[in-house]
Order: sequence, then structure tokens, then C-alpha cells
Amino acid sequence: MDVTDGLEVPQETLDAEIKSFFESAPPLKNGDDISEKLKEFIGRNSLPSGNGSARRVVCVTSGGTTVPLERRCVRYIDNFSSGHRGAASTEYFIKAGYAVIFLHRRGTCQPHCRSLPEDPLLECFEVTDEPNIRVRQSDSEAVKRAITEHHAAVAEGLLLKLPFTTIFEYLQMLQMIAISMRSLGAPAMFYLAAAVSDFYVPWRSMVEHKIQSASGPLDMRLVQVPKMLSVLRKDWAPMAFCISFKLETDKKILLEKADMALKKYKMHMVVANELLSRKEEVVVVTTNDKLSVHRDKTHVGNDVENPLIRLIVERHSAYLENPNL
Amino acid sequence: MDVTDGLEVPQETLDAEIKSFFESAPPLKNGDDISEKLKEFIGRNSLPSGNGSARRVVCVTSGGTTVPLERRCVRYIDNFSSGHRGAASTEYFIKAGYAVIFLHRRGTCQPHCRSLPEDPLLECFEVTDEPNIRVRQSDSEAVKRAITEHHAAVAEGLLLKLPFTTIFEYLQMLQMIAISMRSLGAPAMFYLAAAVSDFYVPWRSMVEHKIQSASGPLDMRLVQVPKMLSVLRKDWAPMAFCISFKLETDKKILLEKADMALKKYKMHMVVANELLSRKEEVVVVTTNDKLSVHRDKTHVGNDVENPLIRLIVERHSAYLENPNL
Repeated sequence: MDVTDGLEVPQETLDAEIKSFFESAPPLKNGDDISEKLKEFIGRNSLPSGNGSARRVVCVTSGGTTVPLERRCVRYIDNFSSGHRGAASTEYFIKAGYAVIFLHRRGTCQPHCRSLPEDPLLECFEVTDEPNIRVRQSDSEAVKRAITEHHAAVAEGLLLKLPFTTIFEYLQMLQMIAISMRSLGAPAMFYLAAAVSDFYVPWRSMVEHKIQSASGPLDMRLVQVPKMLSVLRKDWAPMAFCISFKLETDKKILLEKADMALKKYKMHMVVANELLSRKEEVVVVTTNDKLSVHRDKTHVGNDVENPLIRLIVERHSAYLENPNL
Repeated sequence: MDVTDGLEVPQETLDAEIKSFFESAPPLKNGDDISEKLKEFIGRNSLPSGNGSARRVVCVTSGGTTVPLERRCVRYIDNFSSGHRGAASTEYFIKAGYAVIFLHRRGTCQPHCRSLPEDPLLECFEVTDEPNIRVRQSDSEAVKRAITEHHAAVAEGLLLKLPFTTIFEYLQMLQMIAISMRSLGAPAMFYLAAAVSDFYVPWRSMVEHKIQSASGPLDMRLVQVPKMLSVLRKDWAPMAFCISFKLETDKKILLEKADMALKKYKMHMVVANELLSRKEEVVVVTTNDKLSVHRDKTHVGNDVENPLIRLIVERHSAYLENPNL
């Protein structure tokens, strides 16, 4: 989500834009089913756990949203994101004892599967004379660990996976999740790593049929997606600990924009990352400090999400002790 | 690929547009590797087979191409396509004895895997007390068949998989494949099922960094992708049997546009399909007839690609007997 550079949008204008966005959005196809799953998941995880305190619950958003350019969608604008950051972070949150709602773009990287090849079914398995299928020896450990850890997280009720494709689906689902998580108070966290579209074509002004290629160039006008971060903080889940992400390709403006997002949307942390170095280093911006977090390069399998989630969990603990700081 | 409605682009203009497209495209990262694979694959499959005649080779294109909107690509325009048609057709071509070059969008549906769930690794496998991983009983047959057939096709040298993402990669690779296949003559076929972008932002006029969301709407101007079908027919592989696809959401203009594509690009066949009914029915348009091809509804697992490929193989056989008809 991006910042309106320096220009403050008055609250009434923002409220009207948000209302118009949701009113114009096509209704979620499986809204009742999602609502049921959320109720069950949050109900289970809001019971006091072994040590008497409620379990922490984080909503991790991951992957990019699409903006349809036609109602019967053939063409759309997409935001590049492999979903690797969100998938890796989900694993570390589960290890740290969190329950995770993984709101992810359909088809992007899944938790526990990061180290596998692009098409694991065709690349890791072989058929032998035995009655069953066999994992190739070289992939055996990685595949086994992926399946074991993933199934354990789902079976223990610590992982709820909800897929989206369009910006309309994403924001409607984020609103549902946030309102469901409101009752959790400060143990709730939002870790908003998804690459969310800044511009969209309102459903009402969208053409019904495929855009025809005529002899000239194609001119398109897109309007800004209203910034939902402030309404998430203010109305949807006011006590939750909120972390947003800022991705830029231009290092020069990155920290300045992260700072603006922190203030404008009243985030607790903003993770600033630059496209080319994002797997090596991120800068965590808070009101009081800017901390550079690096991947531990002593081992090739180490990632930057490990120290990042460690830092975030520490800060969340401090917040739980004193939510008003 | 779409038709410039009624307006003929003069040959010199088209040549200049194509030259400009290729000159402006970022160079393929793994061009040498692709070239090597193509040489080996076509060399092997142009040797006379058991019955003394050369094997037929088809290039199946599948999935949608993307158009980057920024050089350090965060946002891009995408064309919706699951790749199901191309993957299914590839299976039937292999069964009919063809060697297939499967030029597909990275991450889309793969041959032999259509009947599996979206994430087969996490959905079909389980870890048991045994030392190995096991396919769930209910998925056992489907998974085993997928892996067996796929590996057999690759091992027998009948399937070469080449992935693309952007329109620049797609058209550069299609040109390389076509020029490599030229020597095969009439046994070569192009089955162009990919959803190819009609408009693009020329690399030279593309912004380097992520587009900033300012306070106003975003206006974009895209130019037409030059139509490569005519140059494929005329220069790249003049003897090959060529089939293109026409997808529309508006049934009223579909057949008319398919007819225009047939004439304008001198295709041997155009497969016309409408977005909502494309899995049930297609219309095959040739110079002499329009044939409606339906899925055989007596069995739920039947698809429209089965009778479609049967028809295409018959017509290709007739073409081989008399390429000048």
C-alpha cells in the first residue's frame, strides 16, 4: 500500500472513497464459508492456552493483488510478488507459537515449501516397480519435512489458509479478518506483506467485454485504491499490533516513504525493502528507531525472515506489556 | 493475437514495427541454452522413424504473456489463461505420435497434471510411519498416472518444455522455435493457444522505477504489439501447418473475427472460443468450413481437446499429402 505523497486526504473523503470501493466491488463468492472458518479458527485460538494467557494470532498477507481491466476478465494488472516473504514469515510465526491466518494470492509460495523446486510433483517423485510412488533420494528430506510440518500446523489448528486473486477479494477478506480479530485485542497482529494494487478500475466503469485492439494505442485511466491501513487501525481492529511493508526500487526515497507510512497510518512498524536487495536486508522503521536486519550469511540456507520475525515478536511482547506506549 | 479491425497495415510498416519490437526487447537471459535444447530436440525428431517418414513436431503455446509496466518490474499487465487448453492438447498430440515443444507461461497448468488438485504436493501426500512418503489412497491412481506419463514423454524425447513470462520472452522464443522448425517443412505445426498481449509498453519508453502513486488517477498509454502471425507464416516457417486461437467474451463478434484472422494471417485453421463456454465447445474455422467441436458429455472426465486434436491431426495429414491445397 502506498502513500499519497504529502497530500492529506480529508477523513470524510477517505470514508466516502472506501464506501464507494466496497459498494462497487463484486460480492465475494464464498463469503459465508470464509466467515465460518474465521469464527472457528479465532474461537479456538482465543481460549487460554497452557500458560493461562491467550494465544497470539497474526494475519500474514502475502503475494500480489490483481486489478481486472474487464468484467469478464481476460486482462488484468498484476503486482509482482512470489509470496516468498509471507510464506517464510508464516513458518517463523508458527515456530514462535503464533496461530497464523495466511491470506495469500492463489498459486504463490506456500509455507514449508520454499526449498522445493517450482513443480515438486513432477520434479521430486518417481514411479518404481513398487506399488507406490517414491520421492527421489536427493529430495527426500526436503519433501518429507515440508509435508510433515505443513500438515502438523494445519492439524494443530495453527494455520488457516485463505486465498485471494483480485484487489476486491483481498480488501473484502482483510476487512472480514480484521473485524473477526478485533475481540482478541493486543495479542492480534497484522503483518501486511502482500503487494497491494495502488490503482484500480472501479467495477461500475469497467467494460463488460474484452477490450478490442483497434488500430491505435490503448489509453487507460485508473483511480487510486483508497488507503485502508488507517481504517484498519482506527475502526476494524484498533488494539492490534500493525506492521506494513514498503517496497521501492529506488533506494533514495525508500526510508522517507516508510517514515511517512508509519506516521500517516499509525503503524507500529514499517518494514522497508528495496526490490533487488530484499532477500538480504530490510530496515525496520519504528517511531523511535531504524533497525537494519540482515540475513546471517554464514549458512546458505539462512534467510532474512528469521531475524526479522524474532525482532517483531520481541516488539509485540513489549507492546503486550504496555499497549499504550 | 488480435486483428487490426479491417485496417490493413502496410508490409513495410509491419516490418518496421517488428524490427522495433525486437530491438527494444531486453535480451533473453538463457538464449544459448534454449537454442541448444531446440537443436537437440529437433535434430532427434527429424530423423526418419520406424515407418520411414519423419516424425511430426508441434509447437504448442500455452498460458498468458505479461507486459511489464516498469523496467524493474513490480507491476505488469497480465492475460488470464490457466494453460489448461495447451496442457490437455499437448497430451493428445503426444498420444497421436507428435513430438511437442510446449512453450508455456511459467507456473501454468502442465501436461498430465490437469486432474490433480491445485497444490498436489500438500494435498495428495501424507507422511506415515514408513520411511517414505505416501500418496493418499484416493489420489493414488491420478498421481501415479500423471508422473508416469509425464516422465515417459520427457524420457522418450517427445516433450520439450520451455517457460516464458513476458511478451518479450514469448515472441523471442517463438521466433527461435519457428526458425529452428523451418527445416522440418510440412510435418511441422504451430498450435498457438497462448493468450498473447495485444498492447505493450516499449522497453525504451518504460520508466526505470516503480510508478509512484500520486494524488490523482494514473493515465497509461500502451502501443499495439505488432502481429507476428503473418511473419511466422511468411518468413519464419513458411511450410508449417498453422493454427491460431481467437478468444472473445462477446459471441456476436467471435466468428467474424476468427474469419478475419484466417484470411489476414493465412492460417490453416482458427479455433474460435468464447470465454464462458470454452471448455464445452469450440468452432474450428477453415477456408472451406466452420466445424463445431463439442465435448462428449457422456462421461464427466471427457474434454473438448480430445475431439479437437483428432480433427486437427486429420487435417494435418491431408495437408501433408498435398501442402498446396
